[in-house]
Amino acid sequence: MNFFEGETKPISPLDALNGTAALSLDQLRSVLIRLEDTIIFNLIERAQFARNAAIYDENAPEFRQLNFKGSFVQYLLREMECVYARVRRYTSPDEHPFTPRHALPEPILPTLAYPQVLHPNDININDDIYRIYVQHVIPTLCNSVNDQQYGSAGTRDVECLQALSRRIHFGKFIAEAKFQDPNEHADYVRMIKAKDSQGIMERLTNSKVEEQVLARLRKKALTYGQDLNDVPSNEPQRPGTPLRGIHLADVVVDLYKEYVIPLTKEVEVDYLLKRLD
Amino acid sequence: MNFFEGETKPISPLDALNGTAALSLDQLRSVLIRLEDTIIFNLIERAQFARNAAIYDENAPEFRQLNFKGSFVQYLLREMECVYARVRRYTSPDEHPFTPRHALPEPILPTLAYPQVLHPNDININDDIYRIYVQHVIPTLCNSVNDQQYGSAGTRDVECLQALSRRIHFGKFIAEAKFQDPNEHADYVRMIKAKDSQGIMERLTNSKVEEQVLARLRKKALTYGQDLNDVPSNEPQRPGTPLRGIHLADVVVDLYKEYVIPLTKEVEVDYLLKRLD
Repeated sequence: MNFFEGETKPISPLDALNGTAALSLDQLRSVLIRLEDTIIFNLIERAQFARNAAIYDENAPEFRQLNFKGSFVQYLLREMECVYARVRRYTSPDEHPFTPRHALPEPILPTLAYPQVLHPNDININDDIYRIYVQHVIPTLCNSVNDQQYGSAGTRDVECLQALSRRIHFGKFIAEAKFQDPNEHADYVRMIKAKDSQGIMERLTNSKVEEQVLARLRKKALTYGQDLNDVPSNEPQRPGTPLRGIHLADVVVDLYKEYVIPLTKEVEVDYLLKRLD
Repeated sequence: MNFFEGETKPISPLDALNGTAALSLDQLRSVLIRLEDTIIFNLIERAQFARNAAIYDENAPEFRQLNFKGSFVQYLLREMECVYARVRRYTSPDEHPFTPRHALPEPILPTLAYPQVLHPNDININDDIYRIYVQHVIPTLCNSVNDQQYGSAGTRDVECLQALSRRIHFGKFIAEAKFQDPNEHADYVRMIKAKDSQGIMERLTNSKVEEQVLARLRKKALTYGQDLNDVPSNEPQRPGTPLRGIHLADVVVDLYKEYVIPLTKEVEVDYLLKRLD
């Protein structure tokens, strides 16, 4: 079994291996569906705090004393990932650090033997995920002011980024399952040999399923984003009040439509193109 | 303004200081109400994983290599709190580490000047919170099996414990606000001088408000705990499936009724008994 493997999901993707060493696409999908809740909860938690642009600014004077080449959020990512690396999180094939691996410590706990489900690869698009999150997600999610809640905002960012990274890199397992599917296998082999990335992308795309994902996300965001707090009506509007409900649903649907789904497919294509190496 | 001060809440308790240096009880309550959502989200996230009793066992052979005197969850708490301490989290009067302060590093970032709202005190009941969480919350929240998702479960525990600690230690601010209330001040001074902890406890207790809190918590848990995943009905029941909805509501209401509310009042009484020292 797996350590950290099951983060934010009820079953492990490696549990989805059945006796024939084939991955169950249905079980992988149920992992992705559960991760939607985690991502929405994390976004709600982040949205209580203002944007605080300084925490993404590599030259912010507020954090000069950290003596770190990068933003405050990247500093927090590295520090947290050092803790996780020591307890062997990044030995699991579905975990990808934002910090370069050479900058992380060796595990203290002995590494577990994972079943070799994936073709060996070093695909990691966390740099893209970080950039998109900072440039496109945070500005629409958060109040644009600076409330100076830097630590609170930054730790929520770490949670959001890790959940998004798990979701997107899960594309490797999805791609492997599709590659192993007897009805698809020969076509994928042909397209991979022809380096036909466009053909692979088209084959991976199921617009009907993507529409279902977006509809389910809207339903979840509207449900979880409700403000159920019976604060007395004579209370002043609270500053930095969570952007919940309808606005949250727009943010979540847009995030998936514009970034999460395309990036997951990008991982799938990258993985498949190297599948026969 | 405050660093880490605003964790998991839209306004800072120190913002609740108005011009007269009196704390606004209404604003403090809105912080506590928002923290309910954070606690419920964290419990939902923890409940996806099994209990994994080994992570609370100080002698578990699985974690012997960490060479740490304490459980795996206590190890994770210490490691994370070291990161937080360096970015000055525990210089904020509403943050309380689980790790003894002497075992934490000094802040790298310069300490902020917080307004002196609270009477100086070193009340920290995190040892009680940890014990109750492990002995009473986890067994009712989680499936009792061991799914070996130790890292995933343990990091969720850290989130749950930190949110509960913030909620419970917020009693200091509530107590200070009540102490400053001109309608209550003389009575509190009298009871404090008489060391009348029972009288103080009775004065702090508002059964009607407590009932409202529990009713709101049930509504929130039933709402946020819904399973909105349209997993195909021919899917097998997933192992360790989240205990959502009705069961979650029972767990959350019981947690607040039996532990969170009484412990918050315990902090309030402890704080007030030393308020005139």
